[in-house]
Amino acid sequence: MSEVRSKAERAGAAAAVLNRLSTDEKNQALLRMAEALRQKQDDIIAANAEDLERGRQQGTSSSLLDRLALNPQRIDAIAAGLEQIVELPDPVGDELENIERPNGLRIRKYRVPLGVIGIIYEARPNVTVDAAGLCLKTGNAVVLRGGSSALSSNRKIVEVLHGALASTAIPPEALQLIEDPNRSSVDEMLKLNGLLDVVIPRGGSSLIRTVVENATVPVIETGAGICHTYLDETADPVMAEEISINAKVQRPSVCNSMETLIVHQAFAREHLLALAGTFKEAGVELRGDEETRRIVDWALPVTEEDYATEYNDYILNVKIVESIDEAMQHIAAYGTKHSECIVTADQRHAERFLHEVDAAAVYHNASTRFTDGFEFGFGAEIGISTQKLHARGPMGLPALTSTKYIIHGNGQIRG
Amino acid sequence: MSEVRSKAERAGAAAAVLNRLSTDEKNQALLRMAEALRQKQDDIIAANAEDLERGRQQGTSSSLLDRLALNPQRIDAIAAGLEQIVELPDPVGDELENIERPNGLRIRKYRVPLGVIGIIYEARPNVTVDAAGLCLKTGNAVVLRGGSSALSSNRKIVEVLHGALASTAIPPEALQLIEDPNRSSVDEMLKLNGLLDVVIPRGGSSLIRTVVENATVPVIETGAGICHTYLDETADPVMAEEISINAKVQRPSVCNSMETLIVHQAFAREHLLALAGTFKEAGVELRGDEETRRIVDWALPVTEEDYATEYNDYILNVKIVESIDEAMQHIAAYGTKHSECIVTADQRHAERFLHEVDAAAVYHNASTRFTDGFEFGFGAEIGISTQKLHARGPMGLPALTSTKYIIHGNGQIRG
Repeated sequence: MSEVRSKAERAGAAAAVLNRLSTDEKNQALLRMAEALRQKQDDIIAANAEDLERGRQQGTSSSLLDRLALNPQRIDAIAAGLEQIVELPDPVGDELENIERPNGLRIRKYRVPLGVIGIIYEARPNVTVDAAGLCLKTGNAVVLRGGSSALSSNRKIVEVLHGALASTAIPPEALQLIEDPNRSSVDEMLKLNGLLDVVIPRGGSSLIRTVVENATVPVIETGAGICHTYLDETADPVMAEEISINAKVQRPSVCNSMETLIVHQAFAREHLLALAGTFKEAGVELRGDEETRRIVDWALPVTEEDYATEYNDYILNVKIVESIDEAMQHIAAYGTKHSECIVTADQRHAERFLHEVDAAAVYHNASTRFTDGFEFGFGAEIGISTQKLHARGPMGLPALTSTKYIIHGNGQIRG
Repeated sequence: MSEVRSKAERAGAAAAVLNRLSTDEKNQALLRMAEALRQKQDDIIAANAEDLERGRQQGTSSSLLDRLALNPQRIDAIAAGLEQIVELPDPVGDELENIERPNGLRIRKYRVPLGVIGIIYEARPNVTVDAAGLCLKTGNAVVLRGGSSALSSNRKIVEVLHGALASTAIPPEALQLIEDPNRSSVDEMLKLNGLLDVVIPRGGSSLIRTVVENATVPVIETGAGICHTYLDETADPVMAEEISINAKVQRPSVCNSMETLIVHQAFAREHLLALAGTFKEAGVELRGDEETRRIVDWALPVTEEDYATEYNDYILNVKIVESIDEAMQHIAAYGTKHSECIVTADQRHAERFLHEVDAAAVYHNASTRFTDGFEFGFGAEIGISTQKLHARGPMGLPALTSTKYIIHGNGQIRG
């Protein structure tokens, strides 16, 4: 039997045990995991050094090496993340409906774990711990398939977590790491219907596309974000600048940062040149349409492909429109239904934009950077869903549960 | 452009209009649809006669012809179904969360339509109207792909509904019928990411398997039901007989009927022979394991394949077990996580079964035949979900919605 199938089966057997644990038993196990990570931080850092050394030999970029690197501070932060998950309310067992039917049937709907969750991700070893913590807290077993560049780190982290779980109510088998670095192990996970209840990809758009196109297992599509900020005719210029600069440069590498700034022509005439200067000072390359380049002569020309690109970098498209309708049409054509913003003083325009733009999170006069579990007050999240089924937007613990109807009768039969 | 793509695009454009309609506007349109079906029943019956004639020429079975056939009573019932949908509460616009963050951001979570829903189904032309009504009521556009054996009926029904919608707020383009009878039109729908928000198959297990295995669009898996009834040691014999007979013969062709009866050995020794006689009188063929055949010598031998088959017919597997654990193991191995039942007087056994069996609906002392939108009090349903994402069990109107976060700020940026 393949590594993937055998580990998924063992996870499934462990899920049946996890399903019956109390919140307290799960929390105790998470605290033990956090403690073990801190205790074994030297071993983890040593394993991480192997990954870093291999990466350097293979010419990995310094930004990727930085995402891969662990040190005592980062390990402490990862352990603290588990402790934060302990503080979150456990959704499992919540009663969502309680119906008594005329025939006396009592129908209750409860939150239950999903079962076995597959997580496919890239280099960052902190995802290994985050995902394990979120899945185990919600009573799910988890099959992790991290990037091969972090394999030594992930293997050591999982070894440490298994050691911690051995003295808890959570069976260590509930946490499985796929070590096969070949793409075929991903492909196999994507077809494990009946063994995996859902697969969640965490990573860049090409990983997400691979998963969506090849999975027969249900998928929650996450993350890809081509987000827009629209500066309407009546936008306050100071607010417009603060929000658009924040949406672009506060952290350009993440999914809820802005890729295209859309500007009403009247606002552009008055304020775009100054705003462009601020972006330039912040190190942002501007790519504009013809109207934009008439005002900002140093902007590069923008292409259709640029509008459809998630840069995750200090590059920004700028497009000038004649109306809010044209702005919304552009968003409908190029957006990924993640996070969209209008800056306006016109309440009617705000309401139209908020209701007509089809996205997980639509903002009036606030930065798209807030689309995040912590910023929404949900705590740690497993990702940001950009699909419309099951969960949309930041996915906190309830997104990792399903429901079940439990029906009590006293002999009812259907007539 | 292909028929499928062009109709899906037109549905998408109409969805943007539908999204803004009031409940009253949608209800008025549904009432017009019902009225038109009754007014044009002769045209529909004439079109249906073409399908029936073609079916007879092709040697279609009489049971399939019966499912295909329309008459004034059936058309009236279909129209009445639309009127029942009018009476159901509209979930769109419901506020599900309202959060004020310390920084003053106001985050509201609303129910919104999914967008464009694809329905792939088989012969029954009533699904055309049901699915259209449920999708339009929830503000969704719908792309229907019915079985080719009902094409004349479906074409006429959709023509009648388009005529009705022309004088309403719902754009007729929101309802699209794919007329291409080739399998390739199904395949194309399954890959229409970005145009279809979800595909829901309604039909037999081979249709559902085709959809799950080939779709890159999100799917809600419905319907396949290998359901069990477990008669525990302490089951009341009268209740055990009533419930198990009802689960099998009240309507054997549907997904929530029983395929395998599991009997505790102590109960079997006392009561199985009499119970088997009752099944025989009801015309049910029994296939039993060795223990069963020692008690019921006329039962045929059961195979592993039988345990994994959804008969939808007057055939029943019987398995004798030594314990509730063995019963639950059998269900975990062969069940499709649809509906499962325990008949017992032992409360501890009931609670174990209800919580440990992994299925959409788990019953204590009631027939599995109750897993149904009307029986649960939800009204008409689009299907019964057997997957764990988004919706599980009977899917009423809320299952046809997604959610959206709408955030009001006054200049907030992320620090």
